[in-house]
Amino acid sequence: MPVVRLDLAYDGTDFHGYARQPDVRTVQGELEAALSRRLGPVQTVVAGRTDAGVHAAHQVVSFEVDPLPDVDRLVASLRKMLPSDIAVTSGAAAPDGFSARFSARSRTYRYVVETGPAPDPFWRRFRWHVPHALDVPVMDDAVRGLVGEHDFVSFCRRAPGRSTVRTVFAAGWERVEHGVEFEVTAKAFCHQMVRSIVAACVDVGRGKLDTGYVDELLAARDRSMGRGAAPPHGLTLLHVDV
Amino acid sequence: MPVVRLDLAYDGTDFHGYARQPDVRTVQGELEAALSRRLGPVQTVVAGRTDAGVHAAHQVVSFEVDPLPDVDRLVASLRKMLPSDIAVTSGAAAPDGFSARFSARSRTYRYVVETGPAPDPFWRRFRWHVPHALDVPVMDDAVRGLVGEHDFVSFCRRAPGRSTVRTVFAAGWERVEHGVEFEVTAKAFCHQMVRSIVAACVDVGRGKLDTGYVDELLAARDRSMGRGAAPPHGLTLLHVDV
Repeated sequence: MPVVRLDLAYDGTDFHGYARQPDVRTVQGELEAALSRRLGPVQTVVAGRTDAGVHAAHQVVSFEVDPLPDVDRLVASLRKMLPSDIAVTSGAAAPDGFSARFSARSRTYRYVVETGPAPDPFWRRFRWHVPHALDVPVMDDAVRGLVGEHDFVSFCRRAPGRSTVRTVFAAGWERVEHGVEFEVTAKAFCHQMVRSIVAACVDVGRGKLDTGYVDELLAARDRSMGRGAAPPHGLTLLHVDV
Repeated sequence: MPVVRLDLAYDGTDFHGYARQPDVRTVQGELEAALSRRLGPVQTVVAGRTDAGVHAAHQVVSFEVDPLPDVDRLVASLRKMLPSDIAVTSGAAAPDGFSARFSARSRTYRYVVETGPAPDPFWRRFRWHVPHALDVPVMDDAVRGLVGEHDFVSFCRRAPGRSTVRTVFAAGWERVEHGVEFEVTAKAFCHQMVRSIVAACVDVGRGKLDTGYVDELLAARDRSMGRGAAPPHGLTLLHVDV
């Protein structure tokens, strides 16, 4: 079957997450409703199922459709139909067997923490404001041990019977003008993994936890030792490598 | 009387403009309500009375108050009281006789036009999307003649009996990654002046109007020849020089 790939960006603030659910506004729901007006019912797959309130600067979606439509015209009409918090940045016919979910080699997320006393109102939908000084080198050290293949169950919201082993390719914190940013690339993530790592790191950066706490948490394989999850609005799916 | 100066930033999307009005949410209304909880009734003056939907990256407000309060503590408590779409970026005791309105030497506004086919959802509250190619050098040429002291009545929403003579220090369009931006600095502006200039320039940049139209409009001193006003959400008060 022919496959169409769409690359998207969205402001997740006013969505109940990416994945379709009955009776609430979701990115997948809006996208499939628009697609179905042109093509009849389609079932999409996605590279990263972002949670409620999480954004995407680059998301990839694919679906099978026969016959293959004129993709440029499809993209133009999606842009007219979709609300302004979803943008179709590009679209193309994809190779046979392509799947946004299974063909993606990695996903990169960014989490933005703003630390100044007066958070920038222009960015309040996209940054978590933490009114404390954060020790960035210490936070950056704390995540070094996450790189590699590990059981991330301590950082995963419970998913009974499913593996919580994941491979992280890179992770680091850096200071930016308005605060600190965490960037992490992995083959895939389990549920709330990035936000759980961020919550633990912020407590390390504030001095509430020892530098080694993230390593201990990883080694313990115990979700109950976690620090909860940082709020969704600071998180953006930055890039999908396909 | 002692004077306090406050520097603000705000996302204007959810306000009915800066200036207080009965029964609607305004920046001045929110600010004075918060100030009055600490100081009793105060009357503020402002450098730039932004319209409904217009933003400020830098706005200056001042008020007289006797005795002078501890301004650092006042700022800290304003930050707690004010909603997240207003930020107090700094506060200080100001020299006797200081007025945010009369002491300001110039105001700089920026208007952002996004021209790509898929407007960035992260910036949709702050950019006007114009789905047309725009000739930026032509637009930039078109505003050269605005610099200097002129009667801007053609670009001003009617203000009976008030002068529409203004002094523009600098004005220019430039191409940026996502589209085009207009930046203009003047001693002061009349009502809807920037948005009226932008609307005319966009019609010039699209080729709907001749390059000389902005000059003709200025010379005609005739508001009815104008092209209306560009929407407010693309406009930001960028800087007040005090």
